[in-house]
Amino acid sequence: MSRIPTSLSHYKAILFDVDGVLSCQTTTLTPDGLPSRTMNVRDGYAIATATKHQELILGIITGGKGEQIINRYTALGMNERFIYMNIKHKREALHDFCQKTGITPNEIIYCGDDLPDLDVMRLVGLSVAPADASPEVLSIAHYISPKNGGEGVARDILEQVMKEKGIWPTTAQGFGW
Amino acid sequence: MSRIPTSLSHYKAILFDVDGVLSCQTTTLTPDGLPSRTMNVRDGYAIATATKHQELILGIITGGKGEQIINRYTALGMNERFIYMNIKHKREALHDFCQKTGITPNEIIYCGDDLPDLDVMRLVGLSVAPADASPEVLSIAHYISPKNGGEGVARDILEQVMKEKGIWPTTAQGFGW
Amino acid sequence: MSRIPTSLSHYKAILFDVDGVLSCQTTTLTPDGLPSRTMNVRDGYAIATATKHQELILGIITGGKGEQIINRYTALGMNERFIYMNIKHKREALHDFCQKTGITPNEIIYCGDDLPDLDVMRLVGLSVAPADASPEVLSIAHYISPKNGGEGVARDILEQVMKEKGIWPTTAQGFGW
Amino acid sequence: MSRIPTSLSHYKAILFDVDGVLSCQTTTLTPDGLPSRTMNVRDGYAIATATKHQELILGIITGGKGEQIINRYTALGMNERFIYMNIKHKREALHDFCQKTGITPNEIIYCGDDLPDLDVMRLVGLSVAPADASPEVLSIAHYISPKNGGEGVARDILEQVMKEKGIWPTTAQGFGW
Repeated sequence: MSRIPTSLSHYKAILFDVDGVLSCQTTTLTPDGLPSRTMNVRDGYAIATATKHQELILGIITGGKGEQIINRYTALGMNERFIYMNIKHKREALHDFCQKTGITPNEIIYCGDDLPDLDVMRLVGLSVAPADASPEVLSIAHYISPKNGGEGVARDILEQVMKEKGIWPTTAQGFGW
Repeated sequence: MSRIPTSLSHYKAILFDVDGVLSCQTTTLTPDGLPSRTMNVRDGYAIATATKHQELILGIITGGKGEQIINRYTALGMNERFIYMNIKHKREALHDFCQKTGITPNEIIYCGDDLPDLDVMRLVGLSVAPADASPEVLSIAHYISPKNGGEGVARDILEQVMKEKGIWPTTAQGFGW
Repeated sequence: MSRIPTSLSHYKAILFDVDGVLSCQTTTLTPDGLPSRTMNVRDGYAIATATKHQELILGIITGGKGEQIINRYTALGMNERFIYMNIKHKREALHDFCQKTGITPNEIIYCGDDLPDLDVMRLVGLSVAPADASPEVLSIAHYISPKNGGEGVARDILEQVMKEKGIWPTTAQGFGW
Repeated sequence: MSRIPTSLSHYKAILFDVDGVLSCQTTTLTPDGLPSRTMNVRDGYAIATATKHQELILGIITGGKGEQIINRYTALGMNERFIYMNIKHKREALHDFCQKTGITPNEIIYCGDDLPDLDVMRLVGLSVAPADASPEVLSIAHYISPKNGGEGVARDILEQVMKEKGIWPTTAQGFGW
């Protein structure tokens, strides 16, 4: 696994786009023509483990929407207040998140894959792109994960940050769900 | 990304086949045995962005059918009048499109992947094939995208055409959905 | 596309296994735990085209079952009498097919991917394996398609047979669905 | 296919994790946000064949849950008593399995892919990892299958064990479902 070339211990929050980041960029449609998103089980384990700790707040800023997103990520322990859906301009959601939490943008890691993410990626302390992000995103990201969107990019980031913070599971007891 | 070896600014419409072009050639069946098509989020962003402009009309000509198609692509801003489904001979749909819009075939880009598309591909100004199109289609296409069907071929075309027309988003404000 | 190293014009029927041949070997489960099979649109076009001709009878012999299979393949023109599902020993279905049609095993092409197919593959005139068939099947198949199961192996066979029989579409009119 | 570098004839049970082992690590979500797991038909044939014999007991230990799992694997012949779902600490399920069956951990093969599996993998006689397991699992597994999770790792193990025990199908009659 590649390593992010920077110290990670001061980051207090990690925010994710959904489509192309937590889910693959190509996914099935429901019979009604809505996206039936994918999830990755390694991402899931890392998210469920991270949300048990106070040191990191996880959240979502997405132009998409759907019960899928709320149900999946609150079940993994995310706070629904930090799941921003149906967002036209992501800068506004970032601003709201900072106000609610008292966390500043330079203490935030954001992972996005396409043009609507560029604005926020330029504002946060560390911007992350999946390997298959659009060229514009790849060209400005601080860190490009070796994982494609939906295939473990969240695990990659979370594992590195949690290891540096000393909260990645290291005992047999810690390995449960 | 490869570039289409021609000037693109005079094209007024882009028409797409669905199965094998906007959707992958291999997809899940519903329990009833109907195709549960895929979509690509990068295609989605480009289509939603293009349909906000008057310079380009987007449409679909497909032998397939389904609520999926109507719902997905009208939600992204396509005009339902230009979504031709259940079409046996695509030449007739192209003719109808030209009549309705006053656009001539040489002002149209068409993207198809298999034998039923060959006829229209020979009539339009610019024919595009996904990388995994059938050999017959690959042999006559003006441009072969590096992207497979369902995995970003629409984004590839739309981005190139919109950049040349000067309507691809370039400001932070323009990057929203 | 590879070519089958034999004359194909005398074959009168092509029979397919479903899982691993017409569908991918790895597929989604329904919430109830039933397989939600895949289909390939290029296979679909070739099957729909072949079933319009008297020269070739298409059928299915599978250990699986489901409305999916009946609905998908009768919609493409297969005769339901030749869709054998829930078959424990495929030899018996082959025997029944030969009795019903008067076609002999050496006039039949069969495409299978795993151990339950070996028996029939040894009986028919031409046995075909997808590229990702099990080693035992690959070792006895007369022809190994370059396509994986579910990703165009039926198209590969049908196109070769229909071209040799002179019934593959070659005019613009013939390219419709 | 790679071979496990050890004698396999004394193993009496094979236990599997689900997500990332019997199912792919990246899968579709249902509209409600639940995982819609995948299955592999070659795994399915091997499991259905193994459960017809007394020599091997098959079971599941997973942190996940769902009708999908029960229905799929009991349909393939697994005993529901040995399908442990919703397990926080897998060591406890292994202990329960050993008590119920009188089988000792060194007579058990376990296949897992991520941190919650490490504990049990260190306790059993033979630990197996799919090719795409997490680095921690790959580093301690006795055997790394050439197959990714969900794409035939169960078939790989079962086939090797059953061949050594002399219960892999070898006659035409044995090849049915």
